[in-house]
Amino acid sequence: MARNVQISFQPSGPTVTVPAGRTMLEAAISGGLQITAICGGRGTCHKCRVKAPGYPGPPRRAEREAFSPEELAEGWRLACLCKLHDDVQVEAVPAEDYAAKSFCQDDQPLIPLRPNVQRWNIELSPPVLADQRSDWQRLRDAIGAGGELRIGYRVLRAMSETLRRAGWRVSVTAIGDQVVEVEPMHLRPPLGVAVDIGTTSVVAMLVDLTTGKAATLGAHSNSQSAHGADVMARIDFSAAPGGTETLQREAAGDLLRIVHECCEQVSANLRDIYEVTVVANTTMAHLFLGLCPRYVGVSPFVGVTNGAFTVSAADLGLNLHPGAQVYVLPGVAGFVGADTIGVLLATGLHRISATVAAIDIGTNVEIVIAHGGRLLTCSAPAGPAFEGGEIRHGMRATAGAINTFVVDDNGMRYTTIGGVKPRGICGSALVDICAELYAYGLIHSGGRLLNAADLADAGHPDPLRLVERVADLPGGVRSFMVASGEESETGQPIHLTQLDIRKFQLAKAATLGGLQVLLSELGITAADLDELLIAGTFGSHIRVERALGAGLIPQIRPEKVRYVGNAALEGARMVLLNADCRQEAEELARRIEHVESAARADFQEIYVESLGFPAAELESGGVVPS
Amino acid sequence: MARNVQISFQPSGPTVTVPAGRTMLEAAISGGLQITAICGGRGTCHKCRVKAPGYPGPPRRAEREAFSPEELAEGWRLACLCKLHDDVQVEAVPAEDYAAKSFCQDDQPLIPLRPNVQRWNIELSPPVLADQRSDWQRLRDAIGAGGELRIGYRVLRAMSETLRRAGWRVSVTAIGDQVVEVEPMHLRPPLGVAVDIGTTSVVAMLVDLTTGKAATLGAHSNSQSAHGADVMARIDFSAAPGGTETLQREAAGDLLRIVHECCEQVSANLRDIYEVTVVANTTMAHLFLGLCPRYVGVSPFVGVTNGAFTVSAADLGLNLHPGAQVYVLPGVAGFVGADTIGVLLATGLHRISATVAAIDIGTNVEIVIAHGGRLLTCSAPAGPAFEGGEIRHGMRATAGAINTFVVDDNGMRYTTIGGVKPRGICGSALVDICAELYAYGLIHSGGRLLNAADLADAGHPDPLRLVERVADLPGGVRSFMVASGEESETGQPIHLTQLDIRKFQLAKAATLGGLQVLLSELGITAADLDELLIAGTFGSHIRVERALGAGLIPQIRPEKVRYVGNAALEGARMVLLNADCRQEAEELARRIEHVESAARADFQEIYVESLGFPAAELESGGVVPS
Repeated sequence: MARNVQISFQPSGPTVTVPAGRTMLEAAISGGLQITAICGGRGTCHKCRVKAPGYPGPPRRAEREAFSPEELAEGWRLACLCKLHDDVQVEAVPAEDYAAKSFCQDDQPLIPLRPNVQRWNIELSPPVLADQRSDWQRLRDAIGAGGELRIGYRVLRAMSETLRRAGWRVSVTAIGDQVVEVEPMHLRPPLGVAVDIGTTSVVAMLVDLTTGKAATLGAHSNSQSAHGADVMARIDFSAAPGGTETLQREAAGDLLRIVHECCEQVSANLRDIYEVTVVANTTMAHLFLGLCPRYVGVSPFVGVTNGAFTVSAADLGLNLHPGAQVYVLPGVAGFVGADTIGVLLATGLHRISATVAAIDIGTNVEIVIAHGGRLLTCSAPAGPAFEGGEIRHGMRATAGAINTFVVDDNGMRYTTIGGVKPRGICGSALVDICAELYAYGLIHSGGRLLNAADLADAGHPDPLRLVERVADLPGGVRSFMVASGEESETGQPIHLTQLDIRKFQLAKAATLGGLQVLLSELGITAADLDELLIAGTFGSHIRVERALGAGLIPQIRPEKVRYVGNAALEGARMVLLNADCRQEAEELARRIEHVESAARADFQEIYVESLGFPAAELESGGVVPS
Repeated sequence: MARNVQISFQPSGPTVTVPAGRTMLEAAISGGLQITAICGGRGTCHKCRVKAPGYPGPPRRAEREAFSPEELAEGWRLACLCKLHDDVQVEAVPAEDYAAKSFCQDDQPLIPLRPNVQRWNIELSPPVLADQRSDWQRLRDAIGAGGELRIGYRVLRAMSETLRRAGWRVSVTAIGDQVVEVEPMHLRPPLGVAVDIGTTSVVAMLVDLTTGKAATLGAHSNSQSAHGADVMARIDFSAAPGGTETLQREAAGDLLRIVHECCEQVSANLRDIYEVTVVANTTMAHLFLGLCPRYVGVSPFVGVTNGAFTVSAADLGLNLHPGAQVYVLPGVAGFVGADTIGVLLATGLHRISATVAAIDIGTNVEIVIAHGGRLLTCSAPAGPAFEGGEIRHGMRATAGAINTFVVDDNGMRYTTIGGVKPRGICGSALVDICAELYAYGLIHSGGRLLNAADLADAGHPDPLRLVERVADLPGGVRSFMVASGEESETGQPIHLTQLDIRKFQLAKAATLGGLQVLLSELGITAADLDELLIAGTFGSHIRVERALGAGLIPQIRPEKVRYVGNAALEGARMVLLNADCRQEAEELARRIEHVESAARADFQEIYVESLGFPAAELESGGVVPS
């Protein structure tokens, strides 16, 4: 008969009695206390920190790696390595610092943790003549989920041997109502992945589904970019023989690469990933699923499906847990995809009474607006300019990219990412340069880059003699020299060309014009906006004043503009942590009204108006550029 | 603009308007009239018969093959071959002669046709800018099943091209709420298969799921018999490495062989089979599913699962429609399997107030009894004797088998199947011979075969001098010569040995003993039975008087005994035709009480009592052999 020991978790945790020899982590879990232990108790992830100065014996090597000498002196240990031979008291378990947080509402910090993936660690009573329930019935009864739970065929085939080999102590994992794993009992938590597949970048987050904590985050450029920078190019490629299959493999490959790196960082296993939730624009969602988006690309722009879709991860070439599922959030219509629904979920726009717009800026721009109980959305192709694409010296926001640009009384200055010699211009500097040169008077409100003769004609002053940096490049393209050959990494000067300015204008017209279309549809103006949320990775790098100065957003008061980070990804994470969010997402997708800009009579006019730089200075109430 | 023509189906069918050029079959289907056409309108199955003397033009070759000259003169045609160019009147469509019939209740001839497999032939409106629903949304809306319908991943990937290639006219097939096929519109009906997997034989029925009609029936001996005649031998084999996989492949192979033959007979296609419903005993169900039944074979006799189970046909190696599903009816416990639930569904025992028992006689015997609102069941291993197995000159009931045996004042006589020279003894003759020799006095009530000396000791008369046919074979086994070497096909005499009689006694003790256990559990006797139903293929070949004479069933009045054929298979067919029967089956499985004979204190006594031949003559109230 095993001797029992008692462990109490202070200040507010349970007191648990377990057989001697169990670890603190096992005791914590059997007491219902959620301690993160991504590595499943192998001492490698260093997450299961507890303060137990009364625990005897010297720290083990993993503990000496995990803690500072001061922490070790205070009695910090890794719960997975400490076997219990006597009663002990744990004084502290770290606060749930990464706990599931709602995105916008800081007064409601936790979304209820109710993931679609469930795990039970249970011990069964073995069958006897007086209790002849079948193995599956016995397991189902022990789980207590009643007749609702089903079991996968592959799992059923191995189950009876597993139960007996494990001495009837097993870990059972279900996705929804389907049991997908029965294993000898262990402590590795089930994991999930939330992913945002953008036209240019893929971002994913690995999440511990028993605690709701984010384990780690990773990103990768979208490998499909080799077949074209924007969604139309991808759609063209997808329609060629084998095109969709190639793009699908690339999308799955990018995700796997990120997830693999995330797992390595926290000593987790791909096989412990049971669910992936996905946001993406319509085209990216089609391609990730291997659905050819060719009819999305031609009028009347219809997809294969816009609804939420669940598919086995294995069908998409993702070698996670063999029973793992992928849930793609529902899209809306046309080019407005699941990313917009993700933004809505995360920002809670559908639950407020104010008039608020959210713009998710990427290669494709999606806009959603809440006003008077209605939710409207549209999308517009900005092209890759904001991500440095199709700009002569454009580059992604990595080391060496010029990322800020300013003109003031002391002259013009720029900074680079990493503080190294400049190699090119990234999206945020593109906005800066256009805004600053326009404010200085070197760019005309129609977008033309002015040379010395133009300036003289217009009678503009040029106190800093910046016009000397304007010249025609070989081939006749007028350009502004941002950095000289002496300053640059390559020895070649870095220019912003007239064509680059045109690309910027087209991208900003998509953004601003899209918003104007929705405002017009509602019969209101930008001045009526209570708030303007800017989402997306690029969005968080631009500066409000420059976005206003360049006319990327309408002329409202800067304090009304707020960055909300990667809200689409946050939406995917919410769906991962709380299965009820799926129904909410699906209801939103049905409720939201999609405005097809091209179908509107006034679209051309709005679009052309949005191409120009803002004619008026910022006014207190905000004005629509006219 | 296509010209329209009108066709009216008399006497009670619809009048339908269709574009000229459509066939009568197409018109019938679009008018909601279910005409069987297994071959999908290729003129090969000869099922779509209609009487339309007004239809012009000479009969085509397929019609001349399908009808007699008299029928042709009366105006009989094949609806699939008759294109409509003018209005026409159909005078008769054959009665639904094979229509879904409830098994026992002749006053309720039809079970409502509500199969789990559904088919829609629909025409969609193509997308336009004012209607940008995705392809899947459009299809789902047209079907009108609302948000409940889901679509399989494989189908979704091909759907958009199919819709356009088919000009938006498609046939859609769903299993439950899952769309598994979208094809250009066609007329081949979806098919289903009901199957009874017995230890010795596999029987299957191909069914048209739009009309509920049975297309054809087939059978095959169970190939697993090579690894042992009874379930215990199969269980032993299954536990060896690769054993379960071998037996699974054999079970699937047997089913495929039958289904393939059935399809050939009616020019149907394996790909048109969408669902298979299965009844089987516990062991056979495990093996068909590839679940190792080793723990069914040892105390406390628990299976992997007894519940209803749905699995993809492809997972079982059945190359039917790629989305086809297999539904195995729920079993009860121990050796009492889905076949018993099938018998219950078909006989409706659970809905009556009388006291009725049903015995399904096979290598494994399952017994169920309804009394006072309770349902009790048990099983017993009869061994293969009833199917000619393990009997010295035993054989299956095929040509050359002695199938009846009688002793009367004129002497002894036998008949053979096919009227040819005898080759052996099948199960029904085994019962006959034992019953007749016991009645004549040549078998003692304990089962001993008497020789001349025994007869003299007992003072038995032997008017026909049958004792002269009793002799000790080489090796010392006492035997009765049923047919001489001159009479037999092989030139060798055909004997019933003392060991054969013992085998029969063991088999009958399982049957009778099992029933006695249930009667005892209920505190009643055989005299309380209002009816005794005998199910199973073997059951329908034995004669009531002989079954009573040999003590295979308790001594009740012969008119209380009724044959119900393969009731288990009928249960599988009901489940195939009406999805609601699944819930009924699952409720029955929960409700029925399983009696584990071996766990009862009085089982040994009952079993030993059941071994002997009936001590008393048949009495009016029925008596239990004592």
